Amino acid sequence: MTEAPDHLPDGDHAAVVDLLGALGYAMLSAFGEMAGDAHRAPDLRVKTAVAGLAVHVYHHQEEVVARIAGHGADPASVMAGFAEPIDAFHERTRPGDWIEGLVKAYVGNGIARDFYAEVARFVDQGTRDFVLRILDSDTDRTEVIAGIVRQAIDQDARLGGRLALWARRIMGEAMQQAQRVGVERDALTQLLVGGRTHGADIAELGRMFARIADGHTARMQRLGLDA
Amino acid sequence: MTEAPDHLPDGDHAAVVDLLGALGYAMLSAFGEMAGDAHRAPDLRVKTAVAGLAVHVYHHQEEVVARIAGHGADPASVMAGFAEPIDAFHERTRPGDWIEGLVKAYVGNGIARDFYAEVARFVDQGTRDFVLRILDSDTDRTEVIAGIVRQAIDQDARLGGRLALWARRIMGEAMQQAQRVGVERDALTQLLVGGRTHGADIAELGRMFARIADGHTARMQRLGLDA
Repeated sequence: MTEAPDHLPDGDHAAVVDLLGALGYAMLSAFGEMAGDAHRAPDLRVKTAVAGLAVHVYHHQEEVVARIAGHGADPASVMAGFAEPIDAFHERTRPGDWIEGLVKAYVGNGIARDFYAEVARFVDQGTRDFVLRILDSDTDRTEVIAGIVRQAIDQDARLGGRLALWARRIMGEAMQQAQRVGVERDALTQLLVGGRTHGADIAELGRMFARIADGHTARMQRLGLDA
Repeated sequence: MTEAPDHLPDGDHAAVVDLLGALGYAMLSAFGEMAGDAHRAPDLRVKTAVAGLAVHVYHHQEEVVARIAGHGADPASVMAGFAEPIDAFHERTRPGDWIEGLVKAYVGNGIARDFYAEVARFVDQGTRDFVLRILDSDTDRTEVIAGIVRQAIDQDARLGGRLALWARRIMGEAMQQAQRVGVERDALTQLLVGGRTHGADIAELGRMFARIADGHTARMQRLGLDA
């Protein structure tokens, strides 16, 4: 069960609620996007695999919502605060077909995972453990998506080039919107670049985005795409 | 747990599997459609209500899949047999916006519910009980959708006229595709119009569609729309 720490300093408390709010809205959106991919997928095996992943993300989003409420905050209003950059990301990366949708789900979820895991380094242990458990709970299902993409590329040599370009666009948009999420709320900004001892300085922020980029390169390789 | 009866005559067995296959594919599609509606909905309260309903339908679809497998049949191939009429229904009734999506979810799910409940009258008691439990398990959540639609109509007087026309189109397309589902497979046709003592004759089929139309009229009234 979700147990909200109530001994945090006010600034940290606000940052934790914001982190959970951004994560919750990102997951609710990912659910909608992936359910759409499942709906567009041509065969039932793919439909079922992707819909199943979407439903798991939805249930984890419910856990995030419960934890926000456990902090005494209103989940809907906290989450709505992050709608703009996350909606913008999805609008600027509308998949042209179901396979672009799957690449977006794999690459985009991976970047989001790494980003939220980085942010979670600056919050209390309880929140960090919770966020990491949520982020890493669907790894096996996500790798099923990678398998479906690899199989599609094997069957169509030209597809790899198109999808590599597409994945690079996802990465570019995701990094832009991740920076917006990071500065959307004062509390999160304070957390990431604030003067407190456990905050990141600008050099550390640079290294953080470099690590996210490395994770992206590794995922591109797992898809069989040029990074 | 799902317990598949193994004492059915071959013809009935095939009809039961077909009924479950049609229902399973219809629910998987309804999940995808409703998840899309949730994604397009403008506010988080509506998003969450509709996404939650979609996820419940998904889980009931999983029960249907398990029951098909319990009959020794391959769920994916049985369900795929009904993709054409169900996909055609959704393609011919693409919502123009999120509120049309909600009206479609409410009216379309209602018609589907009544149709499958009618077909279930002709199968064994165990299957009938299972199908009715699945069909009626989301009634409360569905009424939340009706409430959201009524509220939107209250706030915009012209909306009612547009949505009434839209709901009539849904009904027309649904009845057409329901007839296709009914004749898509020999076993289902035999069940509905076959010569067996418990099959429906043509007059009974007419009454069945009349009852579905009555259910539709009642749902239109609950939405505050002219039927």
